[in-house]
Parts: sequence; C-alpha cells; structure tokens
Amino acid sequence: MAQERGRDYDAVVPIDEMLSFVQRCVEKSGCISTQSRAVAEMLVYADERGHFSHGVNRLHIYTRDLATGTTKSDGKPSIVKQKGGTALVDGDSALGPIVGRFCVEVGTKLAKENGISIVTARNSNHYGAAGHYATMAAEKGLIGMAFTNTSPCLFPTRSSEKALGSNPISFFAPATNGDGFNLDMATSTVAYGKIEVAQRKSKPEVPRGWGADAHGVETTKPSEILGDGGLLPVGGVEERGGYKGTGLCMMVEILCGVLSGAHFGKNVREWQGVAREADLGQCYIFIDPECFADGFTSRVQQFIDETRELTPVDPNLPVRVPGDFARTHRQLVKEEGGLVYHGSQIEHLKGIAEELNVELFKYRPFTNEN
Amino acid sequence: MAQERGRDYDAVVPIDEMLSFVQRCVEKSGCISTQSRAVAEMLVYADERGHFSHGVNRLHIYTRDLATGTTKSDGKPSIVKQKGGTALVDGDSALGPIVGRFCVEVGTKLAKENGISIVTARNSNHYGAAGHYATMAAEKGLIGMAFTNTSPCLFPTRSSEKALGSNPISFFAPATNGDGFNLDMATSTVAYGKIEVAQRKSKPEVPRGWGADAHGVETTKPSEILGDGGLLPVGGVEERGGYKGTGLCMMVEILCGVLSGAHFGKNVREWQGVAREADLGQCYIFIDPECFADGFTSRVQQFIDETRELTPVDPNLPVRVPGDFARTHRQLVKEEGGLVYHGSQIEHLKGIAEELNVELFKYRPFTNEN
Repeated sequence: MAQERGRDYDAVVPIDEMLSFVQRCVEKSGCISTQSRAVAEMLVYADERGHFSHGVNRLHIYTRDLATGTTKSDGKPSIVKQKGGTALVDGDSALGPIVGRFCVEVGTKLAKENGISIVTARNSNHYGAAGHYATMAAEKGLIGMAFTNTSPCLFPTRSSEKALGSNPISFFAPATNGDGFNLDMATSTVAYGKIEVAQRKSKPEVPRGWGADAHGVETTKPSEILGDGGLLPVGGVEERGGYKGTGLCMMVEILCGVLSGAHFGKNVREWQGVAREADLGQCYIFIDPECFADGFTSRVQQFIDETRELTPVDPNLPVRVPGDFARTHRQLVKEEGGLVYHGSQIEHLKGIAEELNVELFKYRPFTNEN
Repeated sequence: MAQERGRDYDAVVPIDEMLSFVQRCVEKSGCISTQSRAVAEMLVYADERGHFSHGVNRLHIYTRDLATGTTKSDGKPSIVKQKGGTALVDGDSALGPIVGRFCVEVGTKLAKENGISIVTARNSNHYGAAGHYATMAAEKGLIGMAFTNTSPCLFPTRSSEKALGSNPISFFAPATNGDGFNLDMATSTVAYGKIEVAQRKSKPEVPRGWGADAHGVETTKPSEILGDGGLLPVGGVEERGGYKGTGLCMMVEILCGVLSGAHFGKNVREWQGVAREADLGQCYIFIDPECFADGFTSRVQQFIDETRELTPVDPNLPVRVPGDFARTHRQLVKEEGGLVYHGSQIEHLKGIAEELNVELFKYRPFTNEN
C-alpha cells in the first residue's frame, strides 16, 4: 500500500525485450547464461509493479559487482545443513537473485512437505525487491515471507551512528483470482528513493520522521538526509513509536544475518562498497494454508475486500490494502503492452548498453494519457 | 524497548503471594484448579516486567468473562489438524492463557522435531502479553514468535472506521546468560494505556501519530482519542509511514484470525463485550537455531551489545534494545523481593478480593528510593 505516485511516462518496453536486454548485460559482465534469467526476472518484477527504485535503475549495480568480482559470476548456492522444515544455504557469493531463487525452490518444497519451512542464506548479495521471492511462494498457494539485511543506512532509536539497514519485511498471502495481500516494506519510514525524488524536485522539506542528519537528529531537509545523514525507522522519533521500527528492523537482522552466520548490523559493508564481498543474509518462511482451516484464500479475499470497502476519511482517497498500488501499475503495463519508463530512465539504460557494447531493447513512445 | 517510565511505588507483593491470589480469584469465578496457574503466571509475567497494562490490572476482565460464561470455565483446547511442523488448535473458548500455554507446548515439541513450527488457535480469548508465550519458547532455546488479533480499536490508514485490533507482534531470541532480544509490540503506535495515563495526568496533548478522533482524523487530544476515537497504526498518518503499520497489523490478522478460521478484522467483538464468545485467533512460530549456523546465542549477544554500545545522540539517553526496559524492572522486583505497585493498584485488587470474597495477598510498603 505505497502511496500513489503521479508520474508521466515517455516510453514503453515490451517485457520480453527488457528481459533479454538485462540477460545480455549481465552475461556480458560475466554471469553464466543459466543464471542470467533470475536477475532479469527480478528487475522486471519490480518495474512491472512500479517499484522503479528496485528495477532496471539498479542494473548497473549488478553488472558492476560482477565486473569487480565482489559477486562471483559462477557462484553456486548449496544446502549446508538441513533438518525437517529447515535449510541453511551458502550463497557462494552468487548474484542475490540467483541465491534467492535457489532458496525459494528449497523452501517451497520443504513447506509442501512439512507445512512450514524456513530457509536462511549467508554469503549472499543484494537481491532486489523482497516481494519478488514472497510472490513466487504465493503463486504456489503458500503464504510467503521474505527478509534480507542490507547495508547500514538507518539510525537505530537514540543512536548517532547508522548501524542497521533498511531491512525489508515481505508477507504475501494469496486470495482468489490472482488477488492477494502483498506487503513489501522497508523497516525504515521510507526508501532513500523517495528522498532523492524530493530533492530532484527541489522540495525544501520532506515530512518529519523520514530521516536524520549526520548526527542522527531528525531533519526535514533532503540535502541533510542524503548527505551524511540517513533514514529513521518506521515510526520516526522515539516518542512517536520509532523504537518499534528499530525493533522490527533488528528482528529482520536476527532472522537474516545472525541466524545464517552472515555479516550483521553495523558490520555489513557499505552500500555500493566493492572492497569486499557483501556476505548478506536472507531468510524465507513459507506456510502451507492447507494445513489450517479450510477456505483460506476466500477468507483472505473477504478480509481485503472488507478493508477496501471501509468508509474513507477523504472520499477521494479510498482505503487500500498492501499491493494495491502495484496491482494498478501492473494493469497499466498490461494495457500498454510493456513496461513504462521516463525518458531519463531510457537514457540511463542506453548508457549501460553502450558501455557494455550490447544491443539495446526495442521500445516505442508512451501514448496512454489516462 | 519501551520508553522508560518514571513512576513511584507504594507496595511490594511477593510473587508467590500474587500467584496464589490470582489463582484464588479465577477459581472462585469458576476456573478449574488445574488451569488457574496459567492465568496467574501470565499476569505476574507482565507485572514483573513493568507492563502493568497487561498485568493484574486486568484480572477483573478474566474473572468477569468466567462469570458471564463468555469464557468457558472448563474449556479444553485440542489439536484438530496436524501435519509436519504445523498444528491447528481449537481453544474451546477456554481462558486465553490456557489456550496459549497449550499451543506453546505443542509448538515447542514440533519445533524441536522439525526445526520450525507454526501453531494457530481459533475459539480463543484475550491472552494478555504476547511476549509471555514467546518467552516460554526462548527459555527452551528457541526463537519464539507469538501473535494475536484483538478487538477493533485502530483506524486502518485512510479509514474513518475502526476495523483492526492493536494486533501485537512478539519476537524473542535468546542470547547468553539469560540476556536476549525481546520484542513485544502492538502494531498501533501506542497502547490505550499510555493515552489514559496522559489524560489522568491532565496533559492537554499527546504526540502526533498516537490516535485519531471519532472520524479517523489524527488528533493530539487524549479525550477525543479515548472518547469515540481510536488508535493509529505504527507510523501514524499515511505520509509518515502509517500504511506500513496498517500492513503489519493486517499481517498479524491473517496469521491469527484468517489462517485459523477465527473471527477477524472488524468482525471481532468489541473489547470487553460479553454478548458473545470472542473467538480470537492466535499464532505461534517457533524456530530452533540449532538447525542453522553454530553459535547463535553468542551472535545475538554480540548484536544486542553492539547496539547498546552505539554512541547516543543524547548522552543521558543510552541506546536500548527491545526488552531492556522490562529487564530493568525485573531487576527492581528482584531487589525488592516482590512485585511493586502503586497504592491505587492495591486498592483495585482489594476491591476484587472483597467482591469475590477471597483472601487478599500479603504485602509490605515499598521502601526503595533509588
């Protein structure tokens, strides 16, 4: 249930065109061909849902990590420990989406056998939108939860040091006819991307609770947050409940970094650092609703429909449930016959194509004026 | 990591005295003697940690529910479906702590066998502090998670109707020497209790983000929130991230009410309603860290210690981790040799003793002036 974001688009790229392009880019950077598809599908997943901060805008990070060798081009995740519904995976420093896909396959099988499964991975890398992995489980009829730790960018409550990542929680539950409850949220109040957008639009201020200055003190100035400042946990400052956001962020860190034996907390390398391997930790918990009361998907549908139908405070702002924004964007993509982008995003990708000397995707102008 | 609350105490009640007293009260109200201990331990758990809003202050609700028959005095929880690491429990409308204890025993056994377990209960009742149940698992070396739905008291983001409970999330992970990470939080910004305290102290305003008026519009006036208003989700209003709190609150509802087949969302009866059974849903997820990287408790210790040692913004407000407030209060209880209470709380309990015609606990004056 992200806020609606009004934006204009200039270009439409058919999904297959973008999938092939991403594969060409990562393969040119060294990724073996059997693994490149996982990266492409993850980035397209995000753009198809309007989560541009996790889509092809980040392609260069994956190609760079391959080029510098901080991510292995032929890493092969494997199970190092397995019992009942659990598995511990070593990611072998493969690209995050490759480790993620491996873990989802293991976790799905274990959940079908045991009713519930948990898979944790160490030696992994940035894997993009957590919801991508929760979705894969939900498409198999499971409740899918996915978590990852990330590089330190957030001030724990009362701290003047950034010591936690934006550690997302995703929780997907299938309803009927492809509908569902799709929660995918950072445990920071907002993502960096929203603050960058505010600065790009020359907004002097963002709402309170979004970020802090270099000393960990709440500020509304985008330049201070993006400079040496950082993010605040969900809830913002302590008196408004920010300590709960810190707690949730630490919970994710325990499930990911601590449980798997990966790096954790302030010991995770800086975002976009290349001096050493990231050694991120990820965690997946899948639940088979078949093991509980009959009619789960119908009840989820009833629950989300009853929520959507609540009388809103402002008649122009209907009540939404997590995933509705993404659903609306996916509908636009379907109507347009492809992913929709700003001109500046197309230019960014052209630069990558030139740099790697790979063929660009085909695209056409965006015409929908709805 | 609740905020420190300065308060004065008047009386000390030895733990055994209070346990016996609660047992006498619920037995007099009809609870069978083999079940009364579970209620007593839950209420004492809360008071021992300074969570007075979940302790013996609520004893009268349990005795009333027994008296009116909305809670069965001889309810017997049972497993209705079991596979792998999962179990579906029917609470038979027994007192919440009795259903909770039963589920924890089932879940602990299943987690030891399968590495991870999930137990959901329907036909349950208010079970007090979720952390009580997470603690029981953590004391067995497990990661313990406990959730419950509650009566509607919270405005989902954009809604003018209260349609969700304060649905808590608890997540406990053991560290070394009895230390640990103990997150126990409502998914509302604060509990009703904090707003009641503000009103009792005649504070004209509470911070933004705590609650809304009868129309779902944010207000800082305690009287409006406590009147026909209600709570806001963690994060407060939408632009400050409140939609994330709504998402988490709904996640808990899916794990509890929806998965188990209990009542859910706006269909749960009103708090303190007695017209019909509560039919609450609860969920427990337990994980055995032995199935993952060796040395889990040491790494949890490192993580929470590194967090506590972060340089604070204000030198007088050290960085805390979830559970530290409760730990401090438990230390006070240990030093005093009993639970500590305000005089008004003792008077409240005297009233219950008279009403039920049971013997009061022994207590002595509080003397610690630290």
